[in-house]
Amino acid sequence: MHYKAIIKIIAILQVVIAAFHLICGTMAIYFKEANAAYSFFLSGVLLIGIGVSALRILIDERPKTLSTKDGFLLVTASWVVAVLVGAIPYHLSEAVPTYADAVFETISGFSTTGASVISDIEALPKSIIFWRSLTHWLGGMGIVVLAVAILPLLGIGGIQLIQAEAPGPTVDKLTPRITETAKYLWYIYLGFTVALAALLMFGGMSLFDSLNHTFATVATGGFGTKNTSVMHYDSAYIDYVLTIFMLLSGINFSLHFRFLTGNLKPVLADSELKTYLVIVALATLIATVSLTGTVYDSYEKSFRYAVFNVASFITTTGFANDDYEKWPFLAQTVLFLLMFVGGCSGSTGGGIKVIRIITLLKQGLNEMKYLIHPRAVFSLRINGQPVKKNIVYAISGFFFLYITTALFVTLIVSTSGVDMMTALSASLTTLGNIGPGFGLIGPTENFAFFPEYVKWTLSAAMLIGRLEIYTVLVLFTPMFWKR
Amino acid sequence: MHYKAIIKIIAILQVVIAAFHLICGTMAIYFKEANAAYSFFLSGVLLIGIGVSALRILIDERPKTLSTKDGFLLVTASWVVAVLVGAIPYHLSEAVPTYADAVFETISGFSTTGASVISDIEALPKSIIFWRSLTHWLGGMGIVVLAVAILPLLGIGGIQLIQAEAPGPTVDKLTPRITETAKYLWYIYLGFTVALAALLMFGGMSLFDSLNHTFATVATGGFGTKNTSVMHYDSAYIDYVLTIFMLLSGINFSLHFRFLTGNLKPVLADSELKTYLVIVALATLIATVSLTGTVYDSYEKSFRYAVFNVASFITTTGFANDDYEKWPFLAQTVLFLLMFVGGCSGSTGGGIKVIRIITLLKQGLNEMKYLIHPRAVFSLRINGQPVKKNIVYAISGFFFLYITTALFVTLIVSTSGVDMMTALSASLTTLGNIGPGFGLIGPTENFAFFPEYVKWTLSAAMLIGRLEIYTVLVLFTPMFWKR
Ligand SMILES: [K+]
Ligand SMILES: [K+]
Repeated sequence: MHYKAIIKIIAILQVVIAAFHLICGTMAIYFKEANAAYSFFLSGVLLIGIGVSALRILIDERPKTLSTKDGFLLVTASWVVAVLVGAIPYHLSEAVPTYADAVFETISGFSTTGASVISDIEALPKSIIFWRSLTHWLGGMGIVVLAVAILPLLGIGGIQLIQAEAPGPTVDKLTPRITETAKYLWYIYLGFTVALAALLMFGGMSLFDSLNHTFATVATGGFGTKNTSVMHYDSAYIDYVLTIFMLLSGINFSLHFRFLTGNLKPVLADSELKTYLVIVALATLIATVSLTGTVYDSYEKSFRYAVFNVASFITTTGFANDDYEKWPFLAQTVLFLLMFVGGCSGSTGGGIKVIRIITLLKQGLNEMKYLIHPRAVFSLRINGQPVKKNIVYAISGFFFLYITTALFVTLIVSTSGVDMMTALSASLTTLGNIGPGFGLIGPTENFAFFPEYVKWTLSAAMLIGRLEIYTVLVLFTPMFWKR
Repeated sequence: MHYKAIIKIIAILQVVIAAFHLICGTMAIYFKEANAAYSFFLSGVLLIGIGVSALRILIDERPKTLSTKDGFLLVTASWVVAVLVGAIPYHLSEAVPTYADAVFETISGFSTTGASVISDIEALPKSIIFWRSLTHWLGGMGIVVLAVAILPLLGIGGIQLIQAEAPGPTVDKLTPRITETAKYLWYIYLGFTVALAALLMFGGMSLFDSLNHTFATVATGGFGTKNTSVMHYDSAYIDYVLTIFMLLSGINFSLHFRFLTGNLKPVLADSELKTYLVIVALATLIATVSLTGTVYDSYEKSFRYAVFNVASFITTTGFANDDYEKWPFLAQTVLFLLMFVGGCSGSTGGGIKVIRIITLLKQGLNEMKYLIHPRAVFSLRINGQPVKKNIVYAISGFFFLYITTALFVTLIVSTSGVDMMTALSASLTTLGNIGPGFGLIGPTENFAFFPEYVKWTLSAAMLIGRLEIYTVLVLFTPMFWKR
């Protein structure tokens, strides 16, 4: 293991995060938030000091080709360090009561989960709110770009690492040079950010609110600036704009790239995209029918709330423009079932992901064909391309580990005495990086009441989910640490 | 497809079931239950008449070697016909209000699920209660023996069919001749029946009650004779005897055979058995701790109720000696999670089954090893034997289809307006052939209130679960019906 090279890269990451602390500190001065400014500058200066010192000591450490094992360690360690240092301003400014809370809020931010332990968001300093949303934006960027670009740039072993943070059945090479790809994805991410912020301001949001909500949307994060999330605005325009951008953010960014470069054919033929849109349409239809005449008297209004919350769940954003726990059970069940789907691969969305569901469904069908013709050979194709057996294997393993982890986390959460639906949905919503759930953690509630060990467990679940299970769990196998 | 041969076999099955109707009819006369006697004799005579006529028409149809496709059709069609004709006495005697209810109760019996639509069991004629328990016993026998013996005896293509009803990773051949094996398994089943009935009578149960509960236990069925299930007896002796026999019935019957013939080594080394016992022990421990000081004041009493309900859930029996919905949430969650496990392969238990969980866990671990050493080859061994890749594939596919079917059934159930936990547990408890669930279908409640289309859906779920998903679903693929 190339520990020194790993530490060097993490030190760079720490300095980058600390630089954002200084930016937030400057913002705190602008907003005259003395305590927050102090916290950000203290954190920023300390972290830059430590980070730069580490880099100076490791100055002769040339970025070398890291092994796959190094890669796994680096990815997980980067996220852990990012969370631990990212939590410092929350803790110093006493925005949250304990360091466990600060860690929970930070991992929830970076992993773009959006589950919160803060009950009164509006009472926070604006600079802290901004940092909170910024963790989403940085995390989302990290998910789309970091693994594809920065890590290989630093000399890490290349394409196999992409499996860690962008695992579809195949890694889809857009351009020959991977850093080029990353640059384009990053332009798209930035483009979405600018467009959405402008559209939200056009809808009457302040610059501050629109930036925060934009960060939370394009990263499919879900943090807001108001205690009542998007309900606060009660605006059909804002609801629909957010719905569209949530749905866009849940689509594979390489498809956006192709669409924007006029390469429409693969976009229109993409089976993951089609399936994703069909699920959204069906779920919206059922929820709209369920809501009409029970919660809302018109189909129009039901549609607005149905499609918003369906988009929020499937893309794993977790915004709420309504207290869906007051909906008829059928509409709630639709949202609950979407927790088992998630966004598209190569998006900022979490969860199991549509492409995996498609692959496993096709594999299930193939198994039936094998029962009829045991000696035949049936290939599994997605978008016309055959998917190799070992990839299907890995996806099957992923699905089992995902469900097993979800049930195991449910058991741990339930030791705190909460009801089964709270425990189950707390597990699913953190592992799937969604945000809110059902029971005691609905859209108008939060995770503050959980005992500290549950917060640590759910923090781990957010990390494990974000890093696609394997990346984290592999570190706990004895084989990983063998020479 | 050899339709005539299939019809001939099903006609034999119908005559066998009708013979049991005549036995129950005789019992009805003994108990002076005129209406029930009329129902059983009418049903029995009619069914025997139709069955024998069919056999006479098909008299020249020699049992030929059936294809795998014939086998799948035969297995599913046998179960469907058994259910449809088995439901007739319920309907004729008006024990249940509709034919849909009669079908639900019958499939619940044959599939050894034990979910009921009958609110007042004690008001039923005794002969009807006996028929209800008998469906469990016959179904359990069918699960252990039918597929291993009767079908091959009739000339059906042999071992591949065993996959339909006894699907562990490998079909474990006990003796060279499969009919011999079946005979021994059947002796064990009969032995358990006699031993348990005697033990229950020794504990103060009447002959009638002990026979009924014995049928429900060895088949891991769960139907009883009292409205309050096993709570009625409130006897530690009966609770422990039933616990032991539930646990025994959840173990692979080929291990019982080996144990009884003094071949202890493979029994003690069996990883499925060990895992099963470890899960029972851990679940009982957590539930006992959760119950002590909250529901019961002593560890002894908590243990008694904990181990009974843990055994009831993991073996998918579904007896209740306590209203576990009044337990602390942690203990309830333990039972809920056991719904995802199920009994051992080759037992009368349902659910996903322990051997599949072991296989998938090992496969998940292997996947991690492949991430570390992508070019290495890691075998998957169970009990020291390598498991072939295509079997692991089939099990992975099974798991995905199981979870997907469960979520799909949840959606359908929830269209009736019930809460999510009721819908989810109704789905899991029928697909897993368990019986009771949570929410509105707890151990003191029943399925009577569901609208008819939900009853049909859950009936289908019981059948699909009992026939291990594939057997039924394969009939719905276009390829199956192609020449
Ligand atoms: K989220
Ligand atoms: K059962």
